[in-house]
Amino acid sequence: MVHNSSETFMVTPWEVKGRIDYLKLAEQFGVKLLTEDDIEEIRRLANNNLHYLLRRRHFYAHRDLNVIIDRIRMGLKCALYTGRGPSADLHIGHLVPWIFTKWLSDVFDMELFFEMTDDEKFLVKGVPLEEANKYAYENALDVIALGFNPKKLHIIIDTEDIKYLYKIAIRVAKKLTISTVKHTFGFTDSSNIGSAFFPTLQIAVAFLPTELYGEEAPVLIPCGIDQDPYFRLARDIAEELRYPKPSTIYCKFIPALTGEEKMSASKPETAIYITDDDRDIKRKIMNALTGGQPTKELQKKFGGNPDKCIVYQYYVVFVENDELVSKIRNDCTNGSILCGECKLILYEKIVKFLHEHREKREKARDKIEEYRLSSKF
Amino acid sequence: MVHNSSETFMVTPWEVKGRIDYLKLAEQFGVKLLTEDDIEEIRRLANNNLHYLLRRRHFYAHRDLNVIIDRIRMGLKCALYTGRGPSADLHIGHLVPWIFTKWLSDVFDMELFFEMTDDEKFLVKGVPLEEANKYAYENALDVIALGFNPKKLHIIIDTEDIKYLYKIAIRVAKKLTISTVKHTFGFTDSSNIGSAFFPTLQIAVAFLPTELYGEEAPVLIPCGIDQDPYFRLARDIAEELRYPKPSTIYCKFIPALTGEEKMSASKPETAIYITDDDRDIKRKIMNALTGGQPTKELQKKFGGNPDKCIVYQYYVVFVENDELVSKIRNDCTNGSILCGECKLILYEKIVKFLHEHREKREKARDKIEEYRLSSKF
Repeated sequence: MVHNSSETFMVTPWEVKGRIDYLKLAEQFGVKLLTEDDIEEIRRLANNNLHYLLRRRHFYAHRDLNVIIDRIRMGLKCALYTGRGPSADLHIGHLVPWIFTKWLSDVFDMELFFEMTDDEKFLVKGVPLEEANKYAYENALDVIALGFNPKKLHIIIDTEDIKYLYKIAIRVAKKLTISTVKHTFGFTDSSNIGSAFFPTLQIAVAFLPTELYGEEAPVLIPCGIDQDPYFRLARDIAEELRYPKPSTIYCKFIPALTGEEKMSASKPETAIYITDDDRDIKRKIMNALTGGQPTKELQKKFGGNPDKCIVYQYYVVFVENDELVSKIRNDCTNGSILCGECKLILYEKIVKFLHEHREKREKARDKIEEYRLSSKF
Repeated sequence: MVHNSSETFMVTPWEVKGRIDYLKLAEQFGVKLLTEDDIEEIRRLANNNLHYLLRRRHFYAHRDLNVIIDRIRMGLKCALYTGRGPSADLHIGHLVPWIFTKWLSDVFDMELFFEMTDDEKFLVKGVPLEEANKYAYENALDVIALGFNPKKLHIIIDTEDIKYLYKIAIRVAKKLTISTVKHTFGFTDSSNIGSAFFPTLQIAVAFLPTELYGEEAPVLIPCGIDQDPYFRLARDIAEELRYPKPSTIYCKFIPALTGEEKMSASKPETAIYITDDDRDIKRKIMNALTGGQPTKELQKKFGGNPDKCIVYQYYVVFVENDELVSKIRNDCTNGSILCGECKLILYEKIVKFLHEHREKREKARDKIEEYRLSSKF
């Protein structure tokens, strides 16, 4: 748990509050920023290819990324690990880190272990267990729809696949005191004992590939920086448990359309859901906060400010085409595009993506078992 | 955890200290003593038959035993549940409650769910996980050797059968705060988070038959009274989780041969192990603390005191034959038997039992899977 000293923002795995200073957050968590050298190294290894979310520094910080890069260069075993707390339909922001993870999996030929923490949503967030479990399956469809090969994606549903995790989890648990868990996650004596135990399961998956492959296989974990407390603990105890330390690569949060800090399932207007119809999407985008001028005339005269514009930030994370994003930025700054036009272009991009995504997602419905860890290990 | 106010004894699931006042302990835990009426009711239901461990009040206290008795009378579903923390070879004292449990299972036609808590031994007691797991199998042989039918005995090994327990355990965990677990079991902020979570698994088995049978099936738990804290919590939360409250029937501890309070794996001379050879057994019994007089002459003149005699207490819990036990008591009191002779008779009884037990236990080695829950549910 990190409270900023000036109390302007707070980030925990369950809550993000305030306007986030990402440099300060990285410093507070003690993670490293991605340097030009890191980025160039990845580009070289990826055959002079670089994912737009790296180019644009949406993924911006890490722990020991170099360990994974070195192993990839040397052809040594490693794996990817990320996850989802399933409690509701996804918004498109959830897909962004997974799109990047899919790229890593393809380019560096790594298997992805994907943990659905239905137990966490029940224990920490009070979602009924049956509902969290149902959403584990629903959300899995969205992961599969991104185009994974069933040989490369291993979905773990905590309450159903606990047999893979429990032995590792109790070894983790033995290294973590009640005190450590309280201080790391902000639990108190009034917290339920399940929420306090849960971190051992999120940590366990970081060590699972080494167990399943029967050889040292450190993981790279692409995820939101709010998940760092789990993996900081995982790294603290890895050596004692004779597992390789997990590496991480962290992305920023995607801002809410309304200009708040993070999209939120409890405020539908802040995000575009996978299930939203075109009309909903249009309304939400047209109502989004921009960096534009109050009137058409002022916009044409002074131009807008893309750095304060949520719509522009959506271009950055959802539109791969560099030329288009760069043109939008220039046209905005020099006043040659109005917010309405700009929003319509984004709307069309997102609607096109979502139509295709929903089609792939439905096609995955019958094949979900092939992508589960339990069908392979 | 119960500390006696006068500090003369302490009983927790992991430690028993001091000379135990069983009446006071029952009062402190808030459990009921078995009455003559209870005992008679059981005798009637058991076709005028009564197990010697009940006749002699080795099982002496309970919670809601009448609920189970009523259900048996009405032919309603219920089950038995007990267990073992596997970390070493057993001593014969461990078998005593299971012998009684076997009788209950036979006479009232109830299935027994038997939990091997290898996770607990690792988390709370620091036994290596592989060793605790190995002893889960070894100890299972001793349970099976008591003569169970594989259809009626369902052995659960926590680390291997966690899939049966985890969903129930997290529902239990959600009802227990860190504070409750700390106060009930004496954990502190320095305790590891696994030991604090473990009680949810011991509680989970109390609710498992209801899940597996798909109908209300309260359990009766025959065990040492030191296990009451688990089941007190289980009873506290059962209704909220829509499970029937477990009932319990508690036995006393079996004193150490050396006169200490409880047999102890860390002090070999205090107990007779299943694996002890005849010479070890003879030595241990011959060295046992008795209620006899210092010399043969004084013994013949004044007689011994069976109520202060460990050897006599062993007769009470290990020798089924009432006539023999009663004769030993009389002969001791009136000085017509010397301690040496009395010990030799006990030695022969125990050696005979153990020879047969070890034979049955080896025969069980190939059949252990048939007795596991996982082969049936």
